[in-house]
Amino acid sequence: MTSEQLSTDHLLGIQDLTREDIELIFRTADDFKEVLARPIKKVPSLRDITIANLFFENSTRTRVSFELAEKRLSADVINFSASSGSTKKGETLVDTVNNILAMKVDMVVMRHPEPGAAVFLSKHVAARIVNAGDGTHEHPTQALLDAYSIREKLGKVKGVRVAIVGDIQHSRVALSNIHCLKKLGAEVMLCGPTTLMPKYAASLGVKVEHDLDKALAWCDVANMLRIQLERQGGDGINNFPSLREYSIMYGLDLARYQRIGKDVVIMHPGPINRGVEVTSEVADHANSIILDQVQNGVAVRMAVLYLLAARIPRASQA
Amino acid sequence: MTSEQLSTDHLLGIQDLTREDIELIFRTADDFKEVLARPIKKVPSLRDITIANLFFENSTRTRVSFELAEKRLSADVINFSASSGSTKKGETLVDTVNNILAMKVDMVVMRHPEPGAAVFLSKHVAARIVNAGDGTHEHPTQALLDAYSIREKLGKVKGVRVAIVGDIQHSRVALSNIHCLKKLGAEVMLCGPTTLMPKYAASLGVKVEHDLDKALAWCDVANMLRIQLERQGGDGINNFPSLREYSIMYGLDLARYQRIGKDVVIMHPGPINRGVEVTSEVADHANSIILDQVQNGVAVRMAVLYLLAARIPRASQA
Amino acid sequence: MTSEQLSTDHLLGIQDLTREDIELIFRTADDFKEVLARPIKKVPSLRDITIANLFFENSTRTRVSFELAEKRLSADVINFSASSGSTKKGETLVDTVNNILAMKVDMVVMRHPEPGAAVFLSKHVAARIVNAGDGTHEHPTQALLDAYSIREKLGKVKGVRVAIVGDIQHSRVALSNIHCLKKLGAEVMLCGPTTLMPKYAASLGVKVEHDLDKALAWCDVANMLRIQLERQGGDGINNFPSLREYSIMYGLDLARYQRIGKDVVIMHPGPINRGVEVTSEVADHANSIILDQVQNGVAVRMAVLYLLAARIPRASQA
Repeated sequence: MTSEQLSTDHLLGIQDLTREDIELIFRTADDFKEVLARPIKKVPSLRDITIANLFFENSTRTRVSFELAEKRLSADVINFSASSGSTKKGETLVDTVNNILAMKVDMVVMRHPEPGAAVFLSKHVAARIVNAGDGTHEHPTQALLDAYSIREKLGKVKGVRVAIVGDIQHSRVALSNIHCLKKLGAEVMLCGPTTLMPKYAASLGVKVEHDLDKALAWCDVANMLRIQLERQGGDGINNFPSLREYSIMYGLDLARYQRIGKDVVIMHPGPINRGVEVTSEVADHANSIILDQVQNGVAVRMAVLYLLAARIPRASQA
Repeated sequence: MTSEQLSTDHLLGIQDLTREDIELIFRTADDFKEVLARPIKKVPSLRDITIANLFFENSTRTRVSFELAEKRLSADVINFSASSGSTKKGETLVDTVNNILAMKVDMVVMRHPEPGAAVFLSKHVAARIVNAGDGTHEHPTQALLDAYSIREKLGKVKGVRVAIVGDIQHSRVALSNIHCLKKLGAEVMLCGPTTLMPKYAASLGVKVEHDLDKALAWCDVANMLRIQLERQGGDGINNFPSLREYSIMYGLDLARYQRIGKDVVIMHPGPINRGVEVTSEVADHANSIILDQVQNGVAVRMAVLYLLAARIPRASQA
Repeated sequence: MTSEQLSTDHLLGIQDLTREDIELIFRTADDFKEVLARPIKKVPSLRDITIANLFFENSTRTRVSFELAEKRLSADVINFSASSGSTKKGETLVDTVNNILAMKVDMVVMRHPEPGAAVFLSKHVAARIVNAGDGTHEHPTQALLDAYSIREKLGKVKGVRVAIVGDIQHSRVALSNIHCLKKLGAEVMLCGPTTLMPKYAASLGVKVEHDLDKALAWCDVANMLRIQLERQGGDGINNFPSLREYSIMYGLDLARYQRIGKDVVIMHPGPINRGVEVTSEVADHANSIILDQVQNGVAVRMAVLYLLAARIPRASQA
């Protein structure tokens, strides 16, 4: 593995990373993809590191991906989920985490419903922090694995036209993707109904388009965001008339896909609402890289953990 | 360990196994019982294998038994339980599992409330599947450990008379046991009230008896099934007048046991409702092998996982 | 590590330990603190041991501390929490634990809401039992780590004056601390409102004081107990008029602390209700050893597990 280092001690958001950092993560992930292709997928790199996974919000997919990455790196892993935790007893976030750190935990992977929670933590505790999603704010490892998967499929990210489709406003995935793709020189278009488009969209240096067919005609890659039913009103229909209407306007079925007339790459961060954002025929299409995204997630997270751990001063670890 | 192989890639139900398969599993379990008797109970056999335990239904006992078996074999283990999972977000079973597989999981141990869930999965995903119970359908490792425990206690299964007593209709244990015992040449009798006896009982090639005392007089082994209160109506009294009446008719207490006049072996798949299916005196009797069943469960599951893993093509694992 | 042994097979309560036992635990914990200061914090001591953590009550902090201690010792770890367990299915405590033991678990760390649960278990099962809190009765590892932390800060426990402040009646921490500190020769004072003071306080050989300022003037160490809101009435105000009134009478803020005029050591078993038992300025004060308590918890628990494991007859382990 490389001896190069990241320019940051934590992965709080894509904003913290330089283009060189991202390229270093990708090259390191390339190495780990080779490891994952071997019968014995484990490396001893982090055998002196303990990582706490603090999930204050449910997320099977992200939690399992990080846990696998940690175990492949031979780290010791402690899982903590909010529902079983001290947080119910009125303890503050800082107290919870400080206690876990006092037990000599070296890194914290945290999912939290509040935007800024990871940044707040990194200022108060002495451990490497990886933001695994903080409310509607950032989800940097998702953006990294998405860009990595585009690079793998198309050989480059620079100059690639990526349409991000759907519920932009409630999506931490969208915001992290915009930052990451622009840093790597991609062109980005946001596509969705006005009610799901943030007012600050124009200020992000991206195109905005409300017509899905026009967006598809323009792009090389369509990243079909999940409708975050749980982030909207209780019935999930506050921001659009109905799921059926949403899927007619912004869902991608095979007929619409075939009308594009070119090989647009299909992405989805999961979990898919089949028949809403994409139909099964599109999700399972030869141009879909949805399962590659999942697979690359483990390698990219191994790379992030490995590179951040390299910045822990080992000698002074007491 | 043996270099012989099973005739199947998955353990979905006893129906998939030949008599030779079952005997191979038993001989392999004999070897692992020896390992479990050592101070260091771990073998490196599956150190290149990652196993996901997907429990869409609670089952401490089965989950812990599998997890121990996996850890004794040095496999990497990822636990997933439905309550913390993506399934709440509307994701399909296939998507959930495909995502976990895209992360390079080699085997899946699955408990699911729907009959046929394990078979369905095995047709859609590229991993070894072990059915850890699918609704009222099958629970093959339970049947294997039950037959293994009879073989251990009596020296053979062939020709042994086994009475399966209680709630046959709601029991996946009963169905898997019938298939397994008959494959190994045992005679099987089902005993319980008409309301808990499936209509197809006669077609299974077993005797049916409604009088427990007659069943006990006939059998060498009585497998006292758990009353699955949670599988019946909310109050558990839909299919019989009351728990008290059930225990009078079909419960085994010491007085009834002593009236048999011979050493009938007592089994129970657990968890026991003490005082309902059996009293404490019977559960803890010298002829009870209830705790042997639990102990053998780990060895039998190690054997199943070991033998299925041997069928994973290691060279092409990418 | 030492070849000396404890005088007991289980850690059920401080009452079981002699002063020599406690001193042996502390010396062993000293060794493990050195291990925890190394980059590689793992020792192979318990690699032949499987430990089940049975938590019938939530406790992130205690569970994580034990789990870390177990993993640092290279034990195999099985986690069991009541909410996911068989206990809901009507199984008795002894059956649950016997089943886990039949799977060859060597030690059980148990948290249970019923006083005496750990003692009960130790009489019925063949494994080392560590009481991780049984209702309002005992929490011996907490008392050990508290006394260890006092010894570390002040160089001794003998002759030190310790005030235990707050909800004595509902606190297993208080009772275990009293036993432990008195065995080691400390002087103990209990301080709190009459409604939170057990009637048997006088019989414990401790001073009782209802005025916090007088207690603070007397003591060298103030252990500010957590108000166990969840152990009182639903609204937590059954035993005192309001949280606000409690914090005025028995809470420690910086002004009150500074009025003492000497360096009283501040302790708290956590989780802190900041602004109730202590304010943030006091919790984070240079004389606070609250995070040292957490850190020492892992070393002390490693010592307890290591010393109890040394009493398992390895040769006869079948």
